[in-house]
Amino acid sequence: MSTATSLDVFDLLHRELDEMDARIVETVDIGIPQINELIQGIITSGGKRLRPTILLLAGRAFAPDHHAMISAAAGIELLHTASLVHDDDIDHSTLRRGRPTLGTQVSSVTAILIGDYLFAQSAILAASTNSTRVVSVFAATLADLCRGQIREMLDSHKLDQTFEEYEQRIFGKTGSLFAGAAEMGAILGGADDRTIAELRAFGRELGIAFQIVDDILDLREMTVSIGKPAGNDLREGTVTLPIMRYNAGLTDGSPDRAMLTDIANGDVTDDVAIDQVVANIRRSGALDEAAAIAGQYLEVARSHLSVVPDSQTQAYLTQITDLVLDRST
Amino acid sequence: MSTATSLDVFDLLHRELDEMDARIVETVDIGIPQINELIQGIITSGGKRLRPTILLLAGRAFAPDHHAMISAAAGIELLHTASLVHDDDIDHSTLRRGRPTLGTQVSSVTAILIGDYLFAQSAILAASTNSTRVVSVFAATLADLCRGQIREMLDSHKLDQTFEEYEQRIFGKTGSLFAGAAEMGAILGGADDRTIAELRAFGRELGIAFQIVDDILDLREMTVSIGKPAGNDLREGTVTLPIMRYNAGLTDGSPDRAMLTDIANGDVTDDVAIDQVVANIRRSGALDEAAAIAGQYLEVARSHLSVVPDSQTQAYLTQITDLVLDRST
Repeated sequence: MSTATSLDVFDLLHRELDEMDARIVETVDIGIPQINELIQGIITSGGKRLRPTILLLAGRAFAPDHHAMISAAAGIELLHTASLVHDDDIDHSTLRRGRPTLGTQVSSVTAILIGDYLFAQSAILAASTNSTRVVSVFAATLADLCRGQIREMLDSHKLDQTFEEYEQRIFGKTGSLFAGAAEMGAILGGADDRTIAELRAFGRELGIAFQIVDDILDLREMTVSIGKPAGNDLREGTVTLPIMRYNAGLTDGSPDRAMLTDIANGDVTDDVAIDQVVANIRRSGALDEAAAIAGQYLEVARSHLSVVPDSQTQAYLTQITDLVLDRST
Repeated sequence: MSTATSLDVFDLLHRELDEMDARIVETVDIGIPQINELIQGIITSGGKRLRPTILLLAGRAFAPDHHAMISAAAGIELLHTASLVHDDDIDHSTLRRGRPTLGTQVSSVTAILIGDYLFAQSAILAASTNSTRVVSVFAATLADLCRGQIREMLDSHKLDQTFEEYEQRIFGKTGSLFAGAAEMGAILGGADDRTIAELRAFGRELGIAFQIVDDILDLREMTVSIGKPAGNDLREGTVTLPIMRYNAGLTDGSPDRAMLTDIANGDVTDDVAIDQVVANIRRSGALDEAAAIAGQYLEVARSHLSVVPDSQTQAYLTQITDLVLDRST
């Protein structure tokens, strides 16, 4: 799928997305000038707005209330932003979207409180849809997100994790927001329960694929193009799917296996050694294997779209799946 | 007011409060055994359950839906607990309710994520009231709370803060939850808008008084009776009302003023010096002055209760104000 076609989705929605941005800017005003400045810096740093796009599309096939849709879209985008603020603090990241993170500008404590405040504001936006069902999905999404982050912290360093454990973890971390976005859009659109469930499943599979592609890009790209240091996951000892695939191809007791184990355990933190392992992973075919698995998730995602009554919206949602895959190829 | 009388409120509500506890225990199950154990430890550590008591009483005067009331009560209590988890992490506290804090058992990162997860679960409880108005109040309460915490971090070390700044800060930190609890109870009870506003105002004044009393107790009591180190606020450089009153009685350029300034700025952290200042504050009459101000807030709180149609409930809510004052005398 060409970039021109994929851009159409954002062309289609640019007014709603701009309206959403304005709603977020207006909502987050905290009334403390120096903190406001930091918050405005975070929310205008140019995210992909993929989650609200999915939400708006999922509702578009039906008859949504415009104000409620913008509120929910703003809510899910701000929830995503809030979770990034806490993630960056937890990971001690210094770059996000090519800009210095909040943690490089203020104390960790301030960053946590700003994250909490953005969570609160995202909940206010969700509540302003006037749909308790949407608020329930919203709160459950936040709970899934936290559960995913806690699992990430407890289990992500394990080289011997199962694929199911990895999947459960990245569902929480990423799939939950995509699933919640699609579900909320469908609810506000007034879709029937079966369609809501199918759209949620679409979001879930799409989100998992998105995270796998992210995990691939972390190992494949240069620092500049992904806006954060390359090989970051490995540096933090986070075992992602491409690393699991690379590990599966190593011989028990080999020096490569030993080195990978040491890095995952945090026993080796030397940049030269890590760069060498990144190079080995790139050569091993593990990135292609992971991309193929992401492709399978996207195929399942598309299979859930048959319930969408409006064929144009169906086509746009399909474009989103192409967009996710495009990043990996 | 005697302890026997004040106990009546909790006697009256003990079934609802027990039901609420059970709902919280059931809701917070995260599905990760080692984290579950920590969470259960936090939520069963015996808080005063004052916020849900206010919520239940505020609804009781009208015709509330039982299930929704328990959900909202559980939501506000869990929101309070979640905020304590983040507070303890931010303050690096080691004791809470006489027990070791989460931060002494797990990494700061885990504590933050567990706090986030509890926030999410409290939002799920609020959403299960099926009232978008309650959810909006709930989310706004969380936002007020965060705003208060951020102000606390930015301004609480300033010896020259105005009373208005102090009031705004402790409203966010404590008054917001009491105000939100009373408001949510009144909404779920089906009270009219004026009564809802009056009950919110009651909660606000009560909460501010409660925090002032807390600030007094921090300086007056021994470590054992408050379940955390005495003089803790001063040790952290947090300037509370009694400290402001003590400061107002000091002469410009006096050694006592210089010492207090150094402690507030964090330039003096020596326990012996701090204990000496605590002793000076106790002797200065500042604690009584602060208690008198708390008493004024409680008087205003009681004046908002005239709208409550049921005189028995009115009496119980009045008892709560006595209970708060009892702690300071």
